[in-house]
Amino acid sequence: MYMLSAFVDIRVRYQETDQMGVVYHANYFTWFESARIELLDQLGWPYREMEQAGYLLPVLGCEASFIKPAQFDDRLQVRAFIRKHISARIEISYEVNRLETLLALGKTTHAFVDKKGKLIRPPKTFVDLVNTKD
Amino acid sequence: MYMLSAFVDIRVRYQETDQMGVVYHANYFTWFESARIELLDQLGWPYREMEQAGYLLPVLGCEASFIKPAQFDDRLQVRAFIRKHISARIEISYEVNRLETLLALGKTTHAFVDKKGKLIRPPKTFVDLVNTKD
Amino acid sequence: MYMLSAFVDIRVRYQETDQMGVVYHANYFTWFESARIELLDQLGWPYREMEQAGYLLPVLGCEASFIKPAQFDDRLQVRAFIRKHISARIEISYEVNRLETLLALGKTTHAFVDKKGKLIRPPKTFVDLVNTKD
Amino acid sequence: MYMLSAFVDIRVRYQETDQMGVVYHANYFTWFESARIELLDQLGWPYREMEQAGYLLPVLGCEASFIKPAQFDDRLQVRAFIRKHISARIEISYEVNRLETLLALGKTTHAFVDKKGKLIRPPKTFVDLVNTKD
Repeated sequence: MYMLSAFVDIRVRYQETDQMGVVYHANYFTWFESARIELLDQLGWPYREMEQAGYLLPVLGCEASFIKPAQFDDRLQVRAFIRKHISARIEISYEVNRLETLLALGKTTHAFVDKKGKLIRPPKTFVDLVNTKD
Repeated sequence: MYMLSAFVDIRVRYQETDQMGVVYHANYFTWFESARIELLDQLGWPYREMEQAGYLLPVLGCEASFIKPAQFDDRLQVRAFIRKHISARIEISYEVNRLETLLALGKTTHAFVDKKGKLIRPPKTFVDLVNTKD
Repeated sequence: MYMLSAFVDIRVRYQETDQMGVVYHANYFTWFESARIELLDQLGWPYREMEQAGYLLPVLGCEASFIKPAQFDDRLQVRAFIRKHISARIEISYEVNRLETLLALGKTTHAFVDKKGKLIRPPKTFVDLVNTKD
Repeated sequence: MYMLSAFVDIRVRYQETDQMGVVYHANYFTWFESARIELLDQLGWPYREMEQAGYLLPVLGCEASFIKPAQFDDRLQVRAFIRKHISARIEISYEVNRLETLLALGKTTHAFVDKKGKLIRPPKTFVDLVNTKD
């Protein structure tokens, strides 16, 4: 199954650690967001513009599994993947790596919503971008 | 399957909202933490004391699904559930309600770890507390 | 100088700690927010309603000084104070205590803003509430 | 007065916004942290190594003033400044800019602390690095 992907470099902030001396788990979802935003940039429709055009992409579900802890000052690569085939539910998956070491996996599920919060089909612009992107 | 549970009352903070006008999804995991801490209190072994005794309970995995958005100033009840049967993996599930309305469901998976980060069996104290608690 | 005040009880979340084993400093501002929201409740004009009426109260400046660290699971009292005399700039000050121990002091400065972000005078409703409140 | 400085590029995260549609004020302190960490890197003693050597640099006080709001997806430059003259209290100041537009100013005050939390003089290594750095 063909996938599109994009990544961001993350440097772990002190604020993101907890007293276990590792990154607090909920912060991975913020990193996933950064990778997702980058993915939309790469697709050619930045999320900022998508919202201005009246399309929102809220998170309907999310999950992560943690293999090794990330620590303060780590340089991480967070990559977001989306399948070429778009359905009503948009699934994006994630990998967090520190060099060659896989630290975490994740997934978020989204649906397009209009400004009133009503679920709508993925806009044609979006579907076309995903379908034509190499 | 018999479950133990405990809940916390949450009042949604402005800081927890995002520009969609609803609570940012990652914040639910912090609320789950509050409910989990309360559950351990109710079991009779507060997490603060558990850590001082050398036992850590990191999050190995987490997930949530969002049914309706929580909004600024909402009063929520966040309830954590644990099964009476304890295995090496501790699973805790969560419900977020605003009065009678279910807003979100979640789950976290944990394992006991010692101070060096080595996976260990659930301490007998913990297993006994779960088993004997009504 | 006569002051009005209100407080909230805070139980420190694990998420709010960092790897120094204490609360990360920026989190105090979120607690200040909770106390400020409570203060507006006590005044009789909850912030949620104020926003719905078209009045925003953004933070123009903020500061805090930290005397002793707050730690995971601490039960704190965070109190917000406002002077009876209201000018264009609204100043609110804060105290964070753990039982009899003062942990931190803070201040935030606000101005009323309309929905377009334009600075406006404090609405008469607000001034009257502050002036008539015992 | 001669200053040393360093900066980081920040791209505003959706998570950092609130329902006013701008960045929540407390998040600036996390950005200040990133700039401060970069400053210590440039000085030649990264904070990660400083902690491993037994020196902590907690925040004793912090403040910020907000001139214009930062918004989702903004590209910001956050710069930290430290004076060449080091005393027991380390003061670091900050500027947040979006291109040529100044968005915010800030300051944090720190003191060196050993692993037991006792206040200590700035280590000679640190003072020398600041004094000899161009």
